[in-house]
Amino acid sequence: MEKQANQLPETMKVAVMTDIHKVELEERPVPSLGSNDVLVKVMAVGVCGSDVHYYDHGRIGNFVVEKPIILGHECAGVVAAVGEEVTRFKVGDRVAVEPGVTCGRCEYCKSGRYNLCKEVEFLATPPFDGSFAQYIKHREDFLFPLPDNMTFEEGALVEPFSVGIHACKRARVQPGSTVAILGMGPVGLMAVVAAKCFGAAQIYVTDIEPARLEAAKRLGATEAFNVKDVDAVAEIKRLTHDAGVDVAIETAGNPRALQTGLAAVRPGGALAIVGLPAQDEIPLNVPLISSYEIDIHGIFRYANTYPLGISFLASNDFDLNAVITDKYPLEQTQDALERALTNKSGSLKVMVYPNGQ
Amino acid sequence: MEKQANQLPETMKVAVMTDIHKVELEERPVPSLGSNDVLVKVMAVGVCGSDVHYYDHGRIGNFVVEKPIILGHECAGVVAAVGEEVTRFKVGDRVAVEPGVTCGRCEYCKSGRYNLCKEVEFLATPPFDGSFAQYIKHREDFLFPLPDNMTFEEGALVEPFSVGIHACKRARVQPGSTVAILGMGPVGLMAVVAAKCFGAAQIYVTDIEPARLEAAKRLGATEAFNVKDVDAVAEIKRLTHDAGVDVAIETAGNPRALQTGLAAVRPGGALAIVGLPAQDEIPLNVPLISSYEIDIHGIFRYANTYPLGISFLASNDFDLNAVITDKYPLEQTQDALERALTNKSGSLKVMVYPNGQ
Amino acid sequence: MEKQANQLPETMKVAVMTDIHKVELEERPVPSLGSNDVLVKVMAVGVCGSDVHYYDHGRIGNFVVEKPIILGHECAGVVAAVGEEVTRFKVGDRVAVEPGVTCGRCEYCKSGRYNLCKEVEFLATPPFDGSFAQYIKHREDFLFPLPDNMTFEEGALVEPFSVGIHACKRARVQPGSTVAILGMGPVGLMAVVAAKCFGAAQIYVTDIEPARLEAAKRLGATEAFNVKDVDAVAEIKRLTHDAGVDVAIETAGNPRALQTGLAAVRPGGALAIVGLPAQDEIPLNVPLISSYEIDIHGIFRYANTYPLGISFLASNDFDLNAVITDKYPLEQTQDALERALTNKSGSLKVMVYPNGQ
Amino acid sequence: MEKQANQLPETMKVAVMTDIHKVELEERPVPSLGSNDVLVKVMAVGVCGSDVHYYDHGRIGNFVVEKPIILGHECAGVVAAVGEEVTRFKVGDRVAVEPGVTCGRCEYCKSGRYNLCKEVEFLATPPFDGSFAQYIKHREDFLFPLPDNMTFEEGALVEPFSVGIHACKRARVQPGSTVAILGMGPVGLMAVVAAKCFGAAQIYVTDIEPARLEAAKRLGATEAFNVKDVDAVAEIKRLTHDAGVDVAIETAGNPRALQTGLAAVRPGGALAIVGLPAQDEIPLNVPLISSYEIDIHGIFRYANTYPLGISFLASNDFDLNAVITDKYPLEQTQDALERALTNKSGSLKVMVYPNGQ
Repeated sequence: MEKQANQLPETMKVAVMTDIHKVELEERPVPSLGSNDVLVKVMAVGVCGSDVHYYDHGRIGNFVVEKPIILGHECAGVVAAVGEEVTRFKVGDRVAVEPGVTCGRCEYCKSGRYNLCKEVEFLATPPFDGSFAQYIKHREDFLFPLPDNMTFEEGALVEPFSVGIHACKRARVQPGSTVAILGMGPVGLMAVVAAKCFGAAQIYVTDIEPARLEAAKRLGATEAFNVKDVDAVAEIKRLTHDAGVDVAIETAGNPRALQTGLAAVRPGGALAIVGLPAQDEIPLNVPLISSYEIDIHGIFRYANTYPLGISFLASNDFDLNAVITDKYPLEQTQDALERALTNKSGSLKVMVYPNGQ
Repeated sequence: MEKQANQLPETMKVAVMTDIHKVELEERPVPSLGSNDVLVKVMAVGVCGSDVHYYDHGRIGNFVVEKPIILGHECAGVVAAVGEEVTRFKVGDRVAVEPGVTCGRCEYCKSGRYNLCKEVEFLATPPFDGSFAQYIKHREDFLFPLPDNMTFEEGALVEPFSVGIHACKRARVQPGSTVAILGMGPVGLMAVVAAKCFGAAQIYVTDIEPARLEAAKRLGATEAFNVKDVDAVAEIKRLTHDAGVDVAIETAGNPRALQTGLAAVRPGGALAIVGLPAQDEIPLNVPLISSYEIDIHGIFRYANTYPLGISFLASNDFDLNAVITDKYPLEQTQDALERALTNKSGSLKVMVYPNGQ
Repeated sequence: MEKQANQLPETMKVAVMTDIHKVELEERPVPSLGSNDVLVKVMAVGVCGSDVHYYDHGRIGNFVVEKPIILGHECAGVVAAVGEEVTRFKVGDRVAVEPGVTCGRCEYCKSGRYNLCKEVEFLATPPFDGSFAQYIKHREDFLFPLPDNMTFEEGALVEPFSVGIHACKRARVQPGSTVAILGMGPVGLMAVVAAKCFGAAQIYVTDIEPARLEAAKRLGATEAFNVKDVDAVAEIKRLTHDAGVDVAIETAGNPRALQTGLAAVRPGGALAIVGLPAQDEIPLNVPLISSYEIDIHGIFRYANTYPLGISFLASNDFDLNAVITDKYPLEQTQDALERALTNKSGSLKVMVYPNGQ
Repeated sequence: MEKQANQLPETMKVAVMTDIHKVELEERPVPSLGSNDVLVKVMAVGVCGSDVHYYDHGRIGNFVVEKPIILGHECAGVVAAVGEEVTRFKVGDRVAVEPGVTCGRCEYCKSGRYNLCKEVEFLATPPFDGSFAQYIKHREDFLFPLPDNMTFEEGALVEPFSVGIHACKRARVQPGSTVAILGMGPVGLMAVVAAKCFGAAQIYVTDIEPARLEAAKRLGATEAFNVKDVDAVAEIKRLTHDAGVDVAIETAGNPRALQTGLAAVRPGGALAIVGLPAQDEIPLNVPLISSYEIDIHGIFRYANTYPLGISFLASNDFDLNAVITDKYPLEQTQDALERALTNKSGSLKVMVYPNGQ
C-alpha cells in the first residue's frame, strides 16, 4: 500500500502538445505508483532546447512525436506519495528529478555508462511523457534530495548542469585547466559553472548575443568573445601564449563553433561535443586532430552527475538568476515554448511552474 | 674518448635526395659522436609513406625540404662505436632505432607524451637527415636491444608497429575487443599485429587491394573486406549483431575510410585517426559522435612503445614476410622510392640495405 | 506465463548443509520463476574455498550460516524454463551463471562497480542458497551464453577465472607485463590464465605444492618457484634484472605470500590482493610502498567479466584439465567438500554434477 | 658566455652540516654554470622534516650523509645569472625551485613518472648539496616563474604543496570528494590546501596538537579531530552517514594514523600514503582492503606539479601565514633546525632567509 500526502487529488492538470506549435491544458488522472515509484508534485520545470525542437518540428532525429505528448524534463518538486517498497524518500521531501530511468541490466548500465542504455525511459522523449504536469511518477533511484538552501529552480537546473559536469569529466577538465566553451545558451552557461567547479583556471567563452556573454561573465567566465566582432581562435591563442586551451566544449550545435573549438585546442588537449548540429556532416580539420593528438569526446546526456551537481550548487554561490529569464504558470506552457523559440537573443532559461510560483 | 669497432672507416656512403624525384649516392664523413651518442651501422631501412611523400612533393604540411636531405627513418643495425658516457650499449650490439630524439625537458616530455615535444629531432624530417646511410649517430636512450631471434628487417618494422601499438593504447584496445582497421598499407598491417597483441578477439580490415587484404589475413585479421565490392559498415554491423566495433583504427588517410571507421564504431566506442589525409577538412557525422559518445583519438607517431614492440615481435610468431615485398641495396634507394611510389597495388614494405643484405 | 522444457519435474534434489561438516540430500520443490528469471538445470558446480570454509567453520567474517544452506556458486547448466519477460534466453540454451545478482540501482551499480553493491544476492552466501541443486532460478541478466566448444566445467570455471580477470584489470596487467602470482590454488591458476590473456610476457608463480606448480606451468606460467626451497623474491629480482615485476597478484591469503608479492613489485608497479587471510592485521613494508609508489588494489569478486572470460576460454586452448582434479555426483557433495578440505596437496578444483556427468 | 647580474660576487655564504647536530657557516665560491643552468639567489628556504632528520640522524633509509652537506630544498629566489643556452629565464626573474633534477632519459622520465628516476639529483639528498646557501645553480627546466603576487615564502611552500597535489592526483580527489587527512604537520596542512583546490567538499583532519588543528581549519578543513580526545574513525563514519571518506591521505608517518586512514575509507575508496614511518612493517587490515576494494597509493615526492601549484596559490587566497611559524637568517640555520626538531607542538614551517628577509 502506498503512503501519500493527505489531500492527494485524483486528477491533475497537464500541458499536452497535441500538434506542432500547439499545447493544450488537460485534466488527467494522477499517476498510480509501482512499488519503487515516487509521486512528485512538480514545482519548477525548465524549458529545454529539445522541448522547443519537438514543439517546432515534431521530431528530433529518430525520435518522432506520433501522438500527443507532455513535454518538459528539467524539473524538481516535492514528494507527494511513495510506492510500497520505496526506502529513500518520504512524503514532503524536496527532490531534483534525473529524467532518464534506465534498465540497470544491460552492459552499458552495468559498466557505469547508463546514459547509453537503449531501454531508458526519458521524460519528454517519445513515447514517454514529461513533466509539464502537476504530478509525475518516477523511480526512486532517479530522484535526489534537494537541500533546503536550494530553490526548485536550481533543482531543475541540475539537469543542464549535469551535461556540463559530464562534459568536464569526459574531457578531463582539471584544477588549473584552461577551457574554452563555445555557445552561451543555458547548457553553455551551466558548463561555465561546471568548469569553475572542476577548478578551471581560465574559462574563455563565445557567443553572438551580448546578453549571453554578459551572463557568462556573471557566472565566472574569464573572457567572453562575441564572434561577430572578433576572431575567437586568435584571441584564445593570444591569451594562452600561442598554446591553445586544454579543453574546448562545444555547446552551440553549429559547424563554425565546432571548428573554432577544435582550432582552439592545444596539442594533447580535448574537445567535448555537446551541441547537436542541424546537419549531419560537418567538415573537421583531421590533420590537426592527428598531429596534435587531440581527443574528441561525444557527449550524450550524463551519468552519475546528480549528487555532485546538487553538492556544487548547494555549497557555492553562483548567481543562477543570470540564467533564468522568464517564468510562466503551467497554463501558459505554450507561451513559454513560444518565448524560448522566438526570443533567442533575450531569453535564456524559461521556467514553468505547474503548481504555482 | 669514444670506443669503437676496429675497422671503422672515415667516410661512408649515403643516399641523398637532392631534388624532387632525385636521389644520389654520396660519400660523407662518418658522424662524430657526442658523449651520449651511439654510432649505428645501419643494416635495414624500411621505406615509409612519408619518405615517398617527401620524394614526390618535397614537403609534408609545414615540413619542407629546403636543402639536400637523407631520407629513411625505419631502421635497425649494429653498434659501431659509442660516446664516452654511453652505458647502455657496447660495440657489436644489435639495435632497433627509435627515430625521434626528444628534449626530455619540456612539459610534454615530462608528462609522458614526448611524441608532442616541439624540440624533437626526427630522422628524415627536415632539417634532420635520416638513415639511408651506412652509419648514423643516435642518442643512446632512443636505441633498443634487438634480440637474437629478430632480424634487422623486423627491427626496422618496430617503427610502423609502434604506430599501431600507440593507436591501440590510446583507443584502449583490450583483451576481447572487436576492432576494425581501415587501410592495409604497412601501417595498417602492423596495426593488425598490434591489435592481436593487445588481445583483440575480432579484427575486421578493409582495403581495395586484394594482395593487401591477403597479407592482413596472414597476419591475423578475422575478416577482410574489399570496399570496392562490399559495404564494409554493413558487413561489420552484421558480424557484430548490429552493435559495431569497440575500436576503429583509420590508417588509409582517406575521407571515405575515415567515415567508414566512424560509422562502424559501437556506442561508447573509439576511433583512432592514424592516416594523414591529403585534404584538411573532412566531413564527419557529428550527431553520431555525440549520440554514441564516441571517443576520437588523434595519433601522432608514438611514445614508450619500443620495448613492448620488440617484446611482442620476439615472442610471437607473426609472418612478417607478408609485409616485406621488395628489397634494394643503398645504391638503388631511388629505385626503392620509385617502387613504393608507383607500385601501390603490389608493394607493401620496401626495404633498403645500406650495408648489404 | 513461463515457458519451459517438456518434462520439468515438480521437485528436485538438493544438497543442504544442515550443520558444520554435515551435508544432506533433500527433495525440494523446483523454484518458481519471477518474470525476469530463468530456471537453470545445473550441470557442473565447482567447489570453492568459500564453500569449504562455510562447511568447516559455519561462517566467513560477518557472513554466518544461521539455518540450513545450499552451498555452491561456481556453475553452468542448461535453461529449463524462462519467466514471461525473459528475452535473452530460451529453453535449451547452455549458460554460465554469474552468481551475484545485484540491485542495479545503488551508486555502486550505477557507476560500474556492482561488485560493491550492498543489496547483492550471491549464491551460497548466507542467507541465499547456492547451486548444489538440480535446478536454480537466476535473473537473466546474470546468465551468459556458453559456446558449443566449451564444456559445463569450463563454464563453471569462468567464476574463479573472473576473479583473475578482475585482478588483472584493476592492477592494469598489459601486453608485455611481467607478473608474479602468489599461490597456485584454483584462483591462482585461473589468474595465470587471465594474465596470459591480458598479454603478460612473463608470469612467475609461487606455491609450496609441486603439483600446483606443475599445473601452473601447464597453463602458461614462465617460472614456478616452490617457496619451501627458494627465495622467490630473490629469484624474481634476478629474472627481472633487479627491477621487480610490473604486477603481483596475491591469491594465497597468507601473510608471507603477501609480503613476497609486495617485495617483488618494481617501482611504479602494482599489487592486487585477492586472497582473504585468516588474520585481520598483516604487517606490510610501508616505506617500500611509499618510496616505490606502489599501487595496492583490493579485489572483491569481479564485475563485467563474464563475456570476456567466456570469450577467452572459447577462443584459446588452455589445458583446463590441469585444474579439475576430482569429480562427484550431487549425492556425494559432502565427500566433495571433505576432499577439498582435506586433500590440499593433491586436489585443485573439485567438481560436483547435480544432474549426472 | 653566461649572462649575469651586475654585482655577482665570487663567493657566497652557505650553512653546512658538518656533523650530526652541527651546522657551520662557510664561505664558498659561487657555483659556475653549465649551459642550461641558472644561478638562483636564494631568498627563502623552508625547513623540511627530512632536513631535520638528516640533522638529527645523519641518514634517511639508504641515504647516508658521508661528508659535509648543505641541507635545505624547499626554496625560491631570483635569477642572478643564466647559462648560455638558457631560454626560459633572464636575470631578475623571480622563481620557485623544483628541487629534483632528473635525467629525462630513463623509462620513468619518459613515461611521465620522473619522480621515480634513479638518476635524479635532488637538493639536500646525499651526496647533493641543498639550498641553505646564498646561491644555487639549477637546470632551467626545474625552475618556474613566480608571479608578482606570490611571496618567496609561498614559492618555497610550493614544494610541500606539490606533495599534497601529487597525493590528490594519484588518489583521484575529485570535485565533491570527501577527504580525510591524517597528520597536520606542514605537509598535511598543504594537503588540506591541495584537497580544497581539487574541489573536495568535506575535509576531515586529525592531529594531536591543537595549534595544528587550528591552522588546518584556517586553511579550509571542515572538521578537525584531536585523536587524543576522540575516535576519529567513529567521527568520520558518523559524519559520512556510515559510508566513510572517498579518499584518506596519511601524512603523519605513524602506524596509528595509517590504520585510522585505512579504516576511514569507504568501499571503492583510496588511501594515499605520504608519511614515512620510522618502522618498516606496519600491520594493516588486509581483509578490509580486499572486501572494500580499497586502492592504496604510495606517494614519493611528485611530478608535474609546479605550474599547477603556483597557479593555485596565485589565484586563491589561502592564509599561508597559518603554516609559517618561525623565521631565521642563514647564519642561524642551526637554530632553525633545532627549532623544528624540538618545538614540534608549536612550530610548523620554519623559514630560513639566506639573503636577508
